[in-house]
Amino acid sequence: MIVTDLRVTPVAIADPPLRSAFGLHAPFALRTIVELDTDEGITGLGETYGGAAPLAAFAAVRPLVVGRDPYDLTPLRLDIERRGAERADGWAWEARRFGPAALFSALEVACLDAIGKATGRRVCDLLGGAARERIDFAAYLFFKHAGDDPWGEVLSPDAIVEEARTMRDRYGYRSLKLKGGVLDPDLEVQSILCLREAFGSDVPLRLDPNAAWSLATAHRVAARLAGALEYLEDPVPGIDGMSAVAAQAPMPLATNMCVTAFDHLPEAIAKRAVAIVLSDHHMWGGMRATVELGRICRAFGLGLSMHSNSHLGISLAAMTHVAAAVPELTFACDTHYPWQTEEVIAGGKLAIEDGAVRVPSGPGLGVELDRDALGALHERYLRAGITVRDDASEMRKVDPSWRQHVGDW
Amino acid sequence: MIVTDLRVTPVAIADPPLRSAFGLHAPFALRTIVELDTDEGITGLGETYGGAAPLAAFAAVRPLVVGRDPYDLTPLRLDIERRGAERADGWAWEARRFGPAALFSALEVACLDAIGKATGRRVCDLLGGAARERIDFAAYLFFKHAGDDPWGEVLSPDAIVEEARTMRDRYGYRSLKLKGGVLDPDLEVQSILCLREAFGSDVPLRLDPNAAWSLATAHRVAARLAGALEYLEDPVPGIDGMSAVAAQAPMPLATNMCVTAFDHLPEAIAKRAVAIVLSDHHMWGGMRATVELGRICRAFGLGLSMHSNSHLGISLAAMTHVAAAVPELTFACDTHYPWQTEEVIAGGKLAIEDGAVRVPSGPGLGVELDRDALGALHERYLRAGITVRDDASEMRKVDPSWRQHVGDW
Repeated sequence: MIVTDLRVTPVAIADPPLRSAFGLHAPFALRTIVELDTDEGITGLGETYGGAAPLAAFAAVRPLVVGRDPYDLTPLRLDIERRGAERADGWAWEARRFGPAALFSALEVACLDAIGKATGRRVCDLLGGAARERIDFAAYLFFKHAGDDPWGEVLSPDAIVEEARTMRDRYGYRSLKLKGGVLDPDLEVQSILCLREAFGSDVPLRLDPNAAWSLATAHRVAARLAGALEYLEDPVPGIDGMSAVAAQAPMPLATNMCVTAFDHLPEAIAKRAVAIVLSDHHMWGGMRATVELGRICRAFGLGLSMHSNSHLGISLAAMTHVAAAVPELTFACDTHYPWQTEEVIAGGKLAIEDGAVRVPSGPGLGVELDRDALGALHERYLRAGITVRDDASEMRKVDPSWRQHVGDW
Repeated sequence: MIVTDLRVTPVAIADPPLRSAFGLHAPFALRTIVELDTDEGITGLGETYGGAAPLAAFAAVRPLVVGRDPYDLTPLRLDIERRGAERADGWAWEARRFGPAALFSALEVACLDAIGKATGRRVCDLLGGAARERIDFAAYLFFKHAGDDPWGEVLSPDAIVEEARTMRDRYGYRSLKLKGGVLDPDLEVQSILCLREAFGSDVPLRLDPNAAWSLATAHRVAARLAGALEYLEDPVPGIDGMSAVAAQAPMPLATNMCVTAFDHLPEAIAKRAVAIVLSDHHMWGGMRATVELGRICRAFGLGLSMHSNSHLGISLAAMTHVAAAVPELTFACDTHYPWQTEEVIAGGKLAIEDGAVRVPSGPGLGVELDRDALGALHERYLRAGITVRDDASEMRKVDPSWRQHVGDW
């Protein structure tokens, strides 16, 4: 089997005005849809980060991909890493936002989808087989502004409980994650305590202020939330900061910010900075890399959860397959999926029931493109004129005095 | 695809009287040949350790294997680990010699061979693709007694140089490994210096006394061999001992004794006990596990080489495929293969040319069974009456006063 064409289509999908420590989600989130055609008439699908950087990176490595056997993934990865190290063809500055790990990951997913379709096997089977058939996800609770969506403004503890109630009713979630770093830390503490009171101790809670807090705030919040959190995610920036918080916090710390690549693991482990790593195949170098991360976490006694960005159904299918194949992934995964009402896959959005997504049963990822939907969302991308995510600028349109907290709240 | 039968055949293969710190190789080395039949008429092959322990372990897990899809490897591994933890069915004591990692590995190899044959792909491709097509091996030099072989007695520095010369002439090896822990440490130092003089500094040398030495001896040998060794393997027992030697030794230390499982890595890394890990898919839980070990070594800055036991061509093919798929495996691998003149694969022994083995090009492992040869070697097993390797007893037949040095030479 040989790759005959690599097609990448940027799309813009409607996104509600969600808040985080980085600012405010713009009306459109950007994604890139990857299609790898093969000489067997099979097309493999992938989905990754959006905007100008991935487009430039895909263009730079196109000659490494077309003409290659989709099974030859490790050689492709090594070639991309070398190319990234050389930083040729104007890829240099783009690589800051979309480096070799992310680039290879998107191509690996599409290759594995093609292999699965060619052999009649699911991607999770190609990764070693499914340790589970239903993947638990956590409700991803956001503070938000009122917008063109049915959720209304959510900027108080009471409103977040209401949002959680609707999420639970609609999707059956059995874990709740609150995106923090938005309100005053004391209000976020109060939000967690209100969630605990509303849903009881059987519903694990998580809080993620995206490293907005100071050490003093993190220590205070951690002490106040003793017994209330399954884990506290990225309270402060950096491995040293996390290590200092971890030494006193009564709950485990998790991260998708200070450990985002294999190279970060040795220092984080030596300094006992985190107890739980949030995997993300888009960021960590692919699906096999995530299986390998699982092995490392098991060997070093770390827990494993999963991070999410705004995404569509191809990414959800890939997340589901990889989560099935990684036995160490015992925490419910994050997903923004219900916040995005649009879709590029045929048949509409994948179902979340009882807080879980079933691993698709078809070959490969088990999803197919809806070309009309893809075309419409690509048109939207061309019209929207956004080529890079910038939540801070979006936030300043609403509140010109807003500034991002990074370890100083 | 479903596994319809699991057949395991113990064999005994002629082995020369090779010496090591453990004693003397018996006239026969034991191996087990694994055959997994499937409902598609395809049979997957594997090879692993020999004797009674593997046979008992395979029998204990047979119900976990037959009826399963060969793609469902991670679930099989988890089931075997659970079964090993329960230690049911008399497997308890056998597991000391042949635990879940070794057992799963043998089954994984056979499943991957079956998948490769079913899909027309090489096993290395199923592991992510080949980073290299020729796998470098090191000549495995042994002190030995005279026996029913053309090598004669080799118990001096001059004789080992002669053995190395023949090995180089015959197989083109470009690295040399000396199995030590046999002669007085000073004679082994002299052997290395003679090899260096005979072959020059372009030929990397290694010395492996299998943890026979004391700390004092290890320090003295390491100092005397400064600049002469690519690495020094297992000079002393245990992670703490290795750590003490590593702190002073001018060359990197390697191990296949104090780090033989993922669980050993955290302590070894924290104590900087070794610079190079010797992988072995038979021991480390399989081929995918070895790929994962490669990722760990890369992340933690460890080198990766490969360990060997006496083995046949199915194991060599598997070692070659996994070495092809692990880019981090940059050191020439160990193999006893030329010491075993018998074979169970059709077409006779795989070729070692220019010190390297080409990854077999056929589907799966790329080797097939010679059933007549298998039958003959199985008959030999039944006649030989050996069910466990015991180099110490074999040595005492020759020298009743011999005792094994463990960290005290």
